[in-house]
Amino acid sequence: MNLDNRLDALEARVRLLEDQLAIYQVMAAYGPAADAGETDQAVALWTDDGVYDLHTRAMVGHAEIARELEGEWHQGLIGRGSAHIVSMPKLEIAGDSAVATCHSRLYRREGDGDYRVISCSANRWEFVRGPQGWRVTRRVSRQLDGSAESHAVLAGGAASSEP
Amino acid sequence: MNLDNRLDALEARVRLLEDQLAIYQVMAAYGPAADAGETDQAVALWTDDGVYDLHTRAMVGHAEIARELEGEWHQGLIGRGSAHIVSMPKLEIAGDSAVATCHSRLYRREGDGDYRVISCSANRWEFVRGPQGWRVTRRVSRQLDGSAESHAVLAGGAASSEP
Amino acid sequence: MNLDNRLDALEARVRLLEDQLAIYQVMAAYGPAADAGETDQAVALWTDDGVYDLHTRAMVGHAEIARELEGEWHQGLIGRGSAHIVSMPKLEIAGDSAVATCHSRLYRREGDGDYRVISCSANRWEFVRGPQGWRVTRRVSRQLDGSAESHAVLAGGAASSEP
Repeated sequence: MNLDNRLDALEARVRLLEDQLAIYQVMAAYGPAADAGETDQAVALWTDDGVYDLHTRAMVGHAEIARELEGEWHQGLIGRGSAHIVSMPKLEIAGDSAVATCHSRLYRREGDGDYRVISCSANRWEFVRGPQGWRVTRRVSRQLDGSAESHAVLAGGAASSEP
Repeated sequence: MNLDNRLDALEARVRLLEDQLAIYQVMAAYGPAADAGETDQAVALWTDDGVYDLHTRAMVGHAEIARELEGEWHQGLIGRGSAHIVSMPKLEIAGDSAVATCHSRLYRREGDGDYRVISCSANRWEFVRGPQGWRVTRRVSRQLDGSAESHAVLAGGAASSEP
Repeated sequence: MNLDNRLDALEARVRLLEDQLAIYQVMAAYGPAADAGETDQAVALWTDDGVYDLHTRAMVGHAEIARELEGEWHQGLIGRGSAHIVSMPKLEIAGDSAVATCHSRLYRREGDGDYRVISCSANRWEFVRGPQGWRVTRRVSRQLDGSAESHAVLAGGAASSEP
Protein backbone atom coordinates (compact mmCIF):
# COMPACT_ATOMS: atom_id res chain seq x y z
CA MET A 1 0.00 0.00 0.00
CA ASN A 2 1.47 3.37 -0.89
CA LEU A 3 1.70 6.29 1.50
CA ASP A 4 -1.33 8.00 0.05
CA ASN A 5 -3.53 4.97 0.55
CA ARG A 6 -2.24 4.41 4.06
CA LEU A 7 -3.08 8.00 4.90
CA ASP A 8 -6.57 7.63 3.45
CA ALA A 9 -7.19 4.54 5.55
CA LEU A 10 -5.85 6.19 8.68
CA GLU A 11 -7.95 9.31 8.19
CA ALA A 12 -11.07 7.18 7.96
CA ARG A 13 -10.20 5.30 11.14
CA VAL A 14 -9.47 8.50 13.04
CA ARG A 15 -12.73 10.00 11.88
CA LEU A 16 -14.63 7.02 13.26
CA LEU A 17 -12.89 7.34 16.62
CA GLU A 18 -13.69 11.06 16.67
CA ASP A 19 -17.31 10.26 15.90
CA GLN A 20 -17.53 7.77 18.76
CA LEU A 21 -16.07 10.22 21.28
CA ALA A 22 -18.15 13.11 19.94
CA ILE A 23 -21.31 11.08 20.53
CA TYR A 24 -20.16 10.22 24.05
CA GLN A 25 -19.84 13.95 24.62
CA VAL A 26 -23.37 14.67 23.42
CA MET A 27 -24.76 11.98 25.72
CA ALA A 28 -22.65 13.15 28.66
CA ALA A 29 -23.87 16.72 28.20
CA TYR A 30 -27.57 16.05 28.72
CA GLY A 31 -27.57 15.26 32.45
CA PRO A 32 -25.47 18.19 33.64
CA ALA A 33 -27.56 20.61 31.55
CA ALA A 34 -30.90 19.14 32.66
CA ASP A 35 -29.95 19.05 36.36
CA ALA A 36 -28.51 22.56 36.29
CA GLY A 37 -31.66 24.02 34.73
CA GLU A 38 -29.72 24.99 31.60
CA THR A 39 -32.62 24.30 29.30
CA ASP A 40 -31.07 25.91 26.23
CA GLN A 41 -27.96 23.76 26.51
CA ALA A 42 -30.04 20.61 26.98
CA VAL A 43 -32.38 21.30 24.09
CA ALA A 44 -29.53 22.20 21.73
CA LEU A 45 -28.39 18.59 21.83
CA TRP A 46 -31.37 17.68 19.63
CA THR A 47 -31.89 18.61 16.01
CA ASP A 48 -34.53 21.31 15.52
CA ASP A 49 -37.26 18.75 14.98
CA GLY A 50 -35.70 16.09 17.20
CA VAL A 51 -37.91 13.83 19.31
CA TYR A 52 -37.71 12.97 23.00
CA ASP A 53 -40.01 9.98 23.44
CA LEU A 54 -40.15 9.73 27.23
CA HIS A 55 -42.08 6.83 28.74
CA THR A 56 -45.61 7.75 27.72
CA ARG A 57 -45.38 10.67 25.36
CA ALA A 58 -43.19 12.05 22.60
CA MET A 59 -42.01 15.65 22.69
CA VAL A 60 -41.18 16.98 19.24
CA GLY A 61 -38.79 19.86 18.62
CA HIS A 62 -36.92 22.25 20.89
CA ALA A 63 -39.97 24.14 22.13
CA GLU A 64 -41.77 21.05 23.42
CA ILE A 65 -38.70 19.61 25.11
CA ALA A 66 -37.96 23.03 26.65
CA ARG A 67 -41.53 23.27 27.97
CA GLU A 68 -41.02 19.99 29.83
CA LEU A 69 -37.70 21.11 31.31
CA GLU A 70 -39.15 24.47 32.34
CA GLY A 71 -42.30 22.88 33.71
CA GLU A 72 -43.36 22.45 37.33
CA TRP A 73 -42.33 18.81 37.64
CA HIS A 74 -38.77 19.19 36.38
CA GLN A 75 -38.19 22.50 38.15
CA GLY A 76 -39.40 21.02 41.42
CA LEU A 77 -37.10 18.07 40.91
CA ILE A 78 -33.94 20.10 40.31
CA GLY A 79 -34.89 22.40 43.20
CA ARG A 80 -34.69 19.40 45.54
CA GLY A 81 -31.54 18.02 43.85
CA SER A 82 -31.47 15.55 40.99
CA ALA A 83 -29.10 13.60 38.78
CA HIS A 84 -29.94 12.35 35.28
CA ILE A 85 -27.21 9.87 34.43
CA VAL A 86 -26.70 7.64 31.39
CA SER A 87 -24.48 4.58 31.35
CA MET A 88 -21.60 4.16 28.92
CA PRO A 89 -23.45 3.31 25.68
CA LYS A 90 -23.15 0.62 23.09
CA LEU A 91 -22.71 2.57 19.85
CA GLU A 92 -23.29 1.74 16.22
CA ILE A 93 -22.11 4.36 13.76
CA ALA A 94 -22.89 4.16 10.03
CA GLY A 95 -21.60 7.12 8.07
CA ASP A 96 -23.57 10.17 9.13
CA SER A 97 -25.99 8.45 11.48
CA ALA A 98 -25.63 6.49 14.66
CA VAL A 99 -27.59 4.61 17.32
CA ALA A 100 -26.68 4.31 21.00
CA THR A 101 -28.18 1.84 23.47
CA CYS A 102 -27.81 2.40 27.20
CA HIS A 103 -29.46 2.63 30.60
CA SER A 104 -30.42 5.86 32.32
CA ARG A 105 -31.21 6.61 35.95
CA LEU A 106 -32.80 9.51 37.74
CA TYR A 107 -31.68 10.13 41.33
CA ARG A 108 -33.64 12.51 43.59
CA ARG A 109 -32.56 13.90 46.93
CA GLU A 110 -34.87 12.92 49.77
CA GLY A 111 -32.88 14.37 52.64
CA ASP A 112 -29.41 14.56 54.15
CA GLY A 113 -27.30 11.73 52.75
CA ASP A 114 -30.35 10.14 51.16
CA TYR A 115 -30.83 9.89 47.40
CA ARG A 116 -33.35 7.57 45.73
CA VAL A 117 -33.43 6.07 42.27
CA ILE A 118 -36.88 7.10 41.10
CA SER A 119 -36.42 6.05 37.48
CA CYS A 120 -34.28 3.46 35.71
CA SER A 121 -34.83 3.15 31.98
CA ALA A 122 -33.90 1.49 28.73
CA ASN A 123 -32.65 4.06 26.24
CA ARG A 124 -32.19 4.29 22.51
CA TRP A 125 -30.61 7.45 21.11
CA GLU A 126 -30.52 8.14 17.38
CA PHE A 127 -28.03 10.69 16.01
CA VAL A 128 -27.27 12.44 12.78
CA ARG A 129 -24.16 14.36 11.75
CA GLY A 130 -24.96 17.83 10.51
CA PRO A 131 -23.26 21.19 10.09
CA GLN A 132 -23.15 21.61 13.89
CA GLY A 133 -21.77 18.14 14.50
CA TRP A 134 -23.61 15.18 15.94
CA ARG A 135 -27.08 15.86 17.30
CA VAL A 136 -29.96 13.75 18.58
CA THR A 137 -32.81 13.08 16.19
CA ARG A 138 -34.70 10.84 18.59
CA ARG A 139 -34.28 9.59 22.12
CA VAL A 140 -36.57 6.86 23.42
CA SER A 141 -36.70 6.05 27.15
CA ARG A 142 -38.81 3.28 28.68
CA GLN A 143 -39.02 2.40 32.37
CA LEU A 144 -37.45 -0.94 33.16
CA ASP A 145 -40.56 -2.59 34.52
CA GLY A 146 -40.32 -5.96 32.82
CA SER A 147 -42.32 -4.86 29.76
CA ALA A 148 -41.57 -6.32 26.35
CA GLU A 149 -41.15 -2.79 25.06
CA SER A 150 -38.40 -1.90 27.54
CA HIS A 151 -36.61 -5.13 26.66
CA ALA A 152 -36.91 -4.38 22.93
CA VAL A 153 -35.30 -0.98 23.43
CA LEU A 154 -32.34 -2.57 25.25
CA ALA A 155 -32.06 -5.27 22.60
CA GLY A 156 -31.41 -2.52 20.08
CA GLY A 157 -34.47 -3.05 17.97
CA ALA A 158 -36.54 -0.22 16.60
CA ALA A 159 -38.81 1.27 19.25
CA SER A 160 -42.45 0.29 19.19
CA SER A 161 -43.67 3.73 18.22
CA GLU A 162 -42.23 3.26 14.76
CA PRO A 163 -44.33 1.67 12.01
CA MET B 1 11.61 10.69 11.02
CA ASN B 2 10.62 9.85 7.47
CA LEU B 3 7.03 9.61 6.30
CA ASP B 4 6.99 5.85 6.47
CA ASN B 5 8.09 5.80 10.09
CA ARG B 6 5.62 8.51 11.04
CA LEU B 7 2.85 6.46 9.47
CA ASP B 8 3.94 3.35 11.33
CA ALA B 9 3.89 5.20 14.63
CA LEU B 10 0.50 6.73 13.91
CA GLU B 11 -1.02 3.39 12.92
CA ALA B 12 0.12 1.89 16.22
CA ARG B 13 -1.40 4.78 18.19
CA VAL B 14 -4.68 4.58 16.31
CA ARG B 15 -4.86 0.86 16.86
CA LEU B 16 -4.47 1.36 20.61
CA LEU B 17 -7.29 3.93 20.63
CA GLU B 18 -9.47 1.53 18.64
CA ASP B 19 -8.70 -1.21 21.14
CA GLN B 20 -9.69 0.97 24.07
CA LEU B 21 -13.01 1.96 22.51
CA ALA B 22 -13.68 -1.61 21.33
CA ILE B 23 -13.29 -2.84 24.89
CA TYR B 24 -15.62 -0.11 26.14
CA GLN B 25 -18.14 -1.44 23.63
CA VAL B 26 -17.86 -5.00 24.89
CA MET B 27 -18.37 -3.86 28.47
CA ALA B 28 -21.28 -1.59 27.53
CA ALA B 29 -23.00 -4.44 25.70
CA TYR B 30 -23.35 -6.79 28.65
CA GLY B 31 -25.99 -4.91 30.66
CA PRO B 32 -28.44 -4.20 27.84
CA ALA B 33 -28.25 -7.83 26.68
CA ALA B 34 -28.61 -9.27 30.19
CA ASP B 35 -31.52 -6.99 31.12
CA ALA B 36 -33.32 -7.58 27.81
CA GLY B 37 -33.11 -11.34 28.17
CA GLU B 38 -30.91 -11.58 25.08
CA THR B 39 -28.87 -14.45 26.44
CA ASP B 40 -27.09 -15.25 23.18
CA GLN B 41 -25.87 -11.67 22.82
CA ALA B 42 -24.67 -11.60 26.41
CA VAL B 43 -22.88 -14.92 26.26
CA ALA B 44 -21.19 -14.10 22.96
CA LEU B 45 -19.15 -11.42 24.74
CA TRP B 46 -17.10 -14.21 26.34
CA THR B 47 -14.67 -16.54 24.60
CA ASP B 48 -15.99 -20.07 24.23
CA ASP B 49 -14.36 -21.19 27.46
CA GLY B 50 -14.57 -17.79 29.14
CA VAL B 51 -15.23 -17.57 32.88
CA TYR B 52 -17.76 -15.51 34.81
CA ASP B 53 -16.65 -15.69 38.42
CA LEU B 54 -19.65 -14.16 40.18
CA HIS B 55 -19.43 -13.64 43.95
CA THR B 56 -19.42 -17.25 45.11
CA ARG B 57 -19.08 -19.45 42.06
CA ALA B 58 -17.38 -19.51 38.68
CA MET B 59 -19.38 -20.27 35.54
CA VAL B 60 -17.20 -21.66 32.76
CA GLY B 61 -18.11 -21.45 29.07
CA HIS B 62 -21.15 -20.20 27.19
CA ALA B 63 -23.49 -22.99 28.32
CA GLU B 64 -22.98 -22.39 32.03
CA ILE B 65 -23.31 -18.62 31.74
CA ALA B 66 -26.41 -19.06 29.58
CA ARG B 67 -27.96 -21.41 32.14
CA GLU B 68 -27.61 -18.70 34.79
CA LEU B 69 -29.18 -16.04 32.55
CA GLU B 70 -32.04 -18.37 31.57
CA GLY B 71 -32.55 -19.50 35.16
CA GLU B 72 -35.36 -18.68 37.54
CA TRP B 73 -33.51 -15.98 39.48
CA HIS B 74 -32.36 -13.92 36.50
CA GLN B 75 -35.63 -14.34 34.61
CA GLY B 76 -37.60 -13.25 37.66
CA LEU B 77 -35.34 -10.25 38.01
CA ILE B 78 -35.73 -9.00 34.45
CA GLY B 79 -39.45 -9.67 34.62
CA ARG B 80 -39.70 -7.13 37.45
CA GLY B 81 -37.28 -4.72 35.77
CA SER B 82 -33.52 -4.62 36.26
CA ALA B 83 -30.40 -2.73 35.23
CA HIS B 84 -26.90 -4.20 35.23
CA ILE B 85 -24.57 -1.23 34.87
CA VAL B 86 -20.78 -0.99 34.87
CA SER B 87 -18.86 2.18 35.53
CA MET B 88 -16.37 3.65 33.07
CA PRO B 89 -13.38 1.31 33.51
CA LYS B 90 -9.71 1.79 34.13
CA LEU B 91 -8.10 -0.11 31.24
CA GLU B 92 -4.68 -1.64 30.74
CA ILE B 93 -4.01 -2.98 27.25
CA ALA B 94 -0.89 -4.99 26.41
CA GLY B 95 -0.83 -6.20 22.83
CA ASP B 96 -3.58 -8.76 22.41
CA SER B 97 -4.74 -8.89 26.01
CA ALA B 98 -6.26 -6.36 28.37
CA VAL B 99 -7.57 -5.91 31.91
CA ALA B 100 -10.34 -3.58 33.00
CA THR B 101 -11.13 -2.56 36.58
CA CYS B 102 -14.49 -1.03 37.43
CA HIS B 103 -17.56 -1.05 39.65
CA SER B 104 -20.86 -2.66 38.74
CA ARG B 105 -24.33 -2.16 40.16
CA LEU B 106 -27.58 -4.05 39.89
CA TYR B 107 -30.80 -2.04 40.19
CA ARG B 108 -34.13 -3.79 40.69
CA ARG B 109 -37.57 -2.28 40.39
CA GLU B 110 -39.58 -2.47 43.63
CA GLY B 111 -42.60 -0.45 42.52
CA ASP B 112 -43.65 2.78 40.83
CA GLY B 113 -40.73 5.20 40.89
CA ASP B 114 -38.79 2.96 43.25
CA TYR B 115 -35.59 1.18 42.22
CA ARG B 116 -33.16 -0.33 44.71
CA VAL B 117 -29.45 -1.08 44.39
CA ILE B 118 -29.34 -4.73 45.38
CA SER B 119 -25.74 -5.33 44.37
CA CYS B 120 -22.66 -3.15 44.11
CA SER B 121 -19.44 -4.93 43.17
CA ALA B 122 -15.75 -4.71 42.45
CA ASN B 123 -15.02 -5.98 38.95
CA ARG B 124 -12.03 -7.24 37.04
CA TRP B 125 -12.51 -8.09 33.37
CA GLU B 126 -9.82 -9.87 31.36
CA PHE B 127 -9.91 -9.71 27.55
CA VAL B 128 -8.16 -11.26 24.63
CA ARG B 129 -8.12 -10.16 21.00
CA GLY B 130 -9.13 -12.95 18.66
CA PRO B 131 -10.49 -13.43 15.15
CA GLN B 132 -13.86 -12.01 16.31
CA GLY B 133 -12.32 -9.02 18.02
CA TRP B 134 -12.01 -8.45 21.75
CA ARG B 135 -13.77 -10.93 23.98
CA VAL B 136 -13.92 -11.64 27.70
CA THR B 137 -11.80 -14.51 28.98
CA ARG B 138 -12.68 -13.92 32.61
CA ARG B 139 -14.87 -11.59 34.60
CA VAL B 140 -14.60 -11.52 38.38
CA SER B 141 -17.23 -9.72 40.49
CA ARG B 142 -17.13 -9.42 44.27
CA GLN B 143 -19.71 -7.67 46.45
CA LEU B 144 -18.35 -4.53 48.04
CA ASP B 145 -18.81 -5.61 51.63
CA GLY B 146 -15.51 -4.50 53.09
CA SER B 147 -13.76 -7.81 52.37
CA ALA B 148 -10.07 -7.92 51.55
CA GLU B 149 -10.94 -9.80 48.39
CA SER B 150 -13.25 -7.09 47.06
CA HIS B 151 -10.57 -4.49 47.77
CA ALA B 152 -7.94 -6.60 46.00
CA VAL B 153 -10.12 -6.76 42.88
CA LEU B 154 -10.49 -2.97 42.85
CA ALA B 155 -6.78 -2.53 43.45
CA GLY B 156 -6.15 -4.34 40.18
CA GLY B 157 -4.38 -7.33 41.57
CA ALA B 158 -5.01 -10.85 40.41
CA ALA B 159 -8.21 -12.27 41.84
CA SER B 160 -7.93 -14.63 44.77
CA SER B 161 -9.09 -17.65 42.83
CA GLU B 162 -5.83 -17.65 40.90
CA PRO B 163 -2.79 -19.51 42.25
CA MET C 1 -2.45 19.08 0.87
CA ASN C 2 0.86 17.27 0.69
CA LEU C 3 1.66 14.11 2.63
CA ASP C 4 3.62 15.96 5.26
CA ASN C 5 0.77 18.31 6.03
CA ARG C 6 -1.73 15.47 6.11
CA LEU C 7 0.45 13.66 8.62
CA ASP C 8 0.76 16.78 10.77
CA ALA C 9 -3.00 17.18 10.84
CA LEU C 10 -3.55 13.53 11.63
CA GLU C 11 -1.02 13.55 14.45
CA ALA C 12 -2.79 16.48 16.07
CA ARG C 13 -6.15 14.73 15.82
CA VAL C 14 -4.78 11.51 17.27
CA ARG C 15 -3.18 13.39 20.11
CA LEU C 16 -6.52 14.98 21.02
CA LEU C 17 -8.20 11.55 21.05
CA GLU C 18 -5.41 10.19 23.23
CA ASP C 19 -5.87 13.12 25.59
CA GLN C 20 -9.60 12.50 25.88
CA LEU C 21 -9.13 8.81 26.68
CA ALA C 22 -6.22 9.49 29.04
CA ILE C 23 -8.43 11.85 31.05
CA TYR C 24 -11.20 9.22 31.14
CA GLN C 25 -8.61 6.87 32.61
CA VAL C 26 -7.61 9.31 35.35
CA MET C 27 -11.25 9.83 36.30
CA ALA C 28 -11.99 6.10 36.20
CA ALA C 29 -9.03 5.38 38.47
CA TYR C 30 -10.17 7.42 41.46
CA GLY C 31 -13.10 5.29 42.61
CA PRO C 32 -11.38 1.89 42.55
CA ALA C 33 -8.37 3.31 44.42
CA ALA C 34 -10.48 5.15 47.01
CA ASP C 35 -12.79 2.16 47.64
CA ALA C 36 -9.87 -0.29 47.86
CA GLY C 37 -8.05 1.83 50.41
CA GLU C 38 -5.19 2.41 47.98
CA THR C 39 -4.54 5.91 49.18
CA ASP C 40 -1.23 6.36 47.34
CA GLN C 41 -2.84 5.45 44.01
CA ALA C 42 -5.75 7.80 44.65
CA VAL C 43 -3.61 10.72 45.72
CA ALA C 44 -1.21 10.30 42.79
CA LEU C 45 -4.00 11.33 40.43
CA TRP C 46 -3.59 14.91 41.66
CA THR C 47 -0.64 17.21 41.03
CA ASP C 48 1.53 17.72 44.11
CA ASP C 49 -0.37 20.83 45.11
CA GLY C 50 -3.69 19.73 43.61
CA VAL C 51 -6.95 20.62 45.35
CA TYR C 52 -9.91 18.45 46.29
CA ASP C 53 -12.68 20.85 47.17
CA LEU C 54 -15.25 18.50 48.68
CA HIS C 55 -18.62 19.95 49.70
CA THR C 56 -17.56 22.16 52.58
CA ARG C 57 -13.77 22.24 52.66
CA ALA C 58 -10.81 22.22 50.30
CA MET C 59 -7.96 19.76 50.82
CA VAL C 60 -4.71 21.01 49.29
CA GLY C 61 -1.87 18.70 48.26
CA HIS C 62 -1.26 14.98 48.56
CA ALA C 63 -0.82 14.95 52.35
CA GLU C 64 -4.20 16.57 53.09
CA ILE C 65 -6.09 14.38 50.64
CA ALA C 66 -4.33 11.30 52.01
CA ARG C 67 -5.25 12.27 55.58
CA GLU C 68 -8.93 12.32 54.57
CA LEU C 69 -8.69 8.91 52.86
CA GLU C 70 -6.84 7.40 55.82
CA GLY C 71 -9.19 9.01 58.33
CA GLU C 72 -11.87 7.38 60.46
CA TRP C 73 -14.81 8.32 58.27
CA HIS C 74 -13.42 7.02 54.97
CA GLN C 75 -11.89 3.90 56.54
CA GLY C 76 -15.18 3.08 58.25
CA LEU C 77 -16.97 3.54 54.94
CA ILE C 78 -14.77 1.20 52.93
CA GLY C 79 -14.85 -1.31 55.78
CA ARG C 80 -18.62 -1.56 55.32
CA GLY C 81 -18.38 -1.53 51.52
CA SER C 82 -18.52 1.55 49.31
CA ALA C 83 -18.47 2.66 45.70
CA HIS C 84 -17.35 6.09 44.51
CA ILE C 85 -18.51 6.33 40.90
CA VAL C 86 -18.32 9.16 38.39
CA SER C 87 -20.49 9.41 35.31
CA MET C 88 -19.08 9.64 31.79
CA PRO C 89 -17.86 13.27 31.71
CA LYS C 90 -18.34 16.16 29.34
CA LEU C 91 -14.77 17.15 28.48
CA GLU C 92 -13.21 20.34 27.18
CA ILE C 93 -9.53 20.10 26.29
CA ALA C 94 -7.45 23.13 25.39
CA GLY C 95 -3.81 22.31 24.75
CA ASP C 96 -2.25 21.22 28.02
CA SER C 97 -5.25 21.85 30.25
CA ALA C 98 -8.74 20.42 30.42
CA VAL C 99 -12.02 20.61 32.33
CA ALA C 100 -14.47 17.77 32.91
CA THR C 101 -18.04 18.12 34.13
CA CYS C 102 -19.89 15.12 35.52
CA HIS C 103 -21.96 13.64 38.32
CA SER C 104 -20.60 11.46 41.09
CA ARG C 105 -22.33 9.10 43.49
CA LEU C 106 -21.33 7.38 46.67
CA TYR C 107 -22.99 4.04 47.42
CA ARG C 108 -22.70 2.47 50.89
CA ARG C 109 -23.59 -1.06 51.89
CA GLU C 110 -26.31 -1.23 54.53
CA GLY C 111 -26.79 -4.99 54.61
CA ASP C 112 -27.28 -8.02 52.41
CA GLY C 113 -28.44 -6.92 48.98
CA ASP C 114 -28.97 -3.37 50.23
CA TYR C 115 -26.86 -0.44 49.03
CA ARG C 116 -27.86 3.20 49.52
CA VAL C 117 -26.86 6.31 47.60
CA ILE C 118 -25.63 8.55 50.39
CA SER C 119 -24.16 11.24 48.17
CA CYS C 120 -24.89 12.48 44.67
CA SER C 121 -22.86 15.45 43.51
CA ALA C 122 -22.07 17.93 40.77
CA ASN C 123 -18.40 17.69 39.80
CA ARG C 124 -15.88 19.85 38.03
CA TRP C 125 -12.41 18.40 37.46
CA GLU C 126 -9.53 20.52 36.19
CA PHE C 127 -6.51 18.84 34.64
CA VAL C 128 -3.08 19.76 33.43
CA ARG C 129 -0.68 17.80 31.22
CA GLY C 130 2.73 17.41 32.82
CA PRO C 131 5.76 15.15 32.59
CA GLN C 132 3.73 12.31 34.19
CA GLY C 133 0.78 12.78 31.89
CA TRP C 134 -2.60 14.26 32.79
CA ARG C 135 -3.20 14.97 36.45
CA VAL C 136 -5.88 16.71 38.48
CA THR C 137 -5.16 20.25 39.60
CA ARG C 138 -8.55 20.75 41.20
CA ARG C 139 -11.69 18.73 41.77
CA VAL C 140 -14.81 20.43 43.06
CA SER C 141 -17.77 18.38 44.31
CA ARG C 142 -21.04 19.86 45.53
CA GLN C 143 -24.04 17.90 46.82
CA LEU C 144 -27.01 18.08 44.48
CA ASP C 145 -29.39 19.70 46.93
CA GLY C 146 -30.94 22.32 44.70
CA SER C 147 -28.35 24.98 45.57
CA ALA C 148 -27.30 27.56 43.01
CA GLU C 149 -23.71 26.52 43.59
CA SER C 150 -24.33 22.87 42.65
CA HIS C 151 -26.15 24.02 39.53
CA ALA C 152 -23.29 26.34 38.62
CA VAL C 153 -20.81 23.48 38.84
CA LEU C 154 -22.93 21.37 36.49
CA ALA C 155 -23.38 24.29 34.13
CA GLY C 156 -19.62 24.30 33.67
CA GLY C 157 -18.94 27.70 35.12
CA ALA C 158 -16.09 28.44 37.47
CA ALA C 159 -16.76 27.21 40.99
CA SER C 160 -17.81 29.73 43.57
CA SER C 161 -14.63 29.45 45.58
CA GLU C 162 -12.71 31.18 42.81
CA PRO C 163 -12.38 34.96 42.84
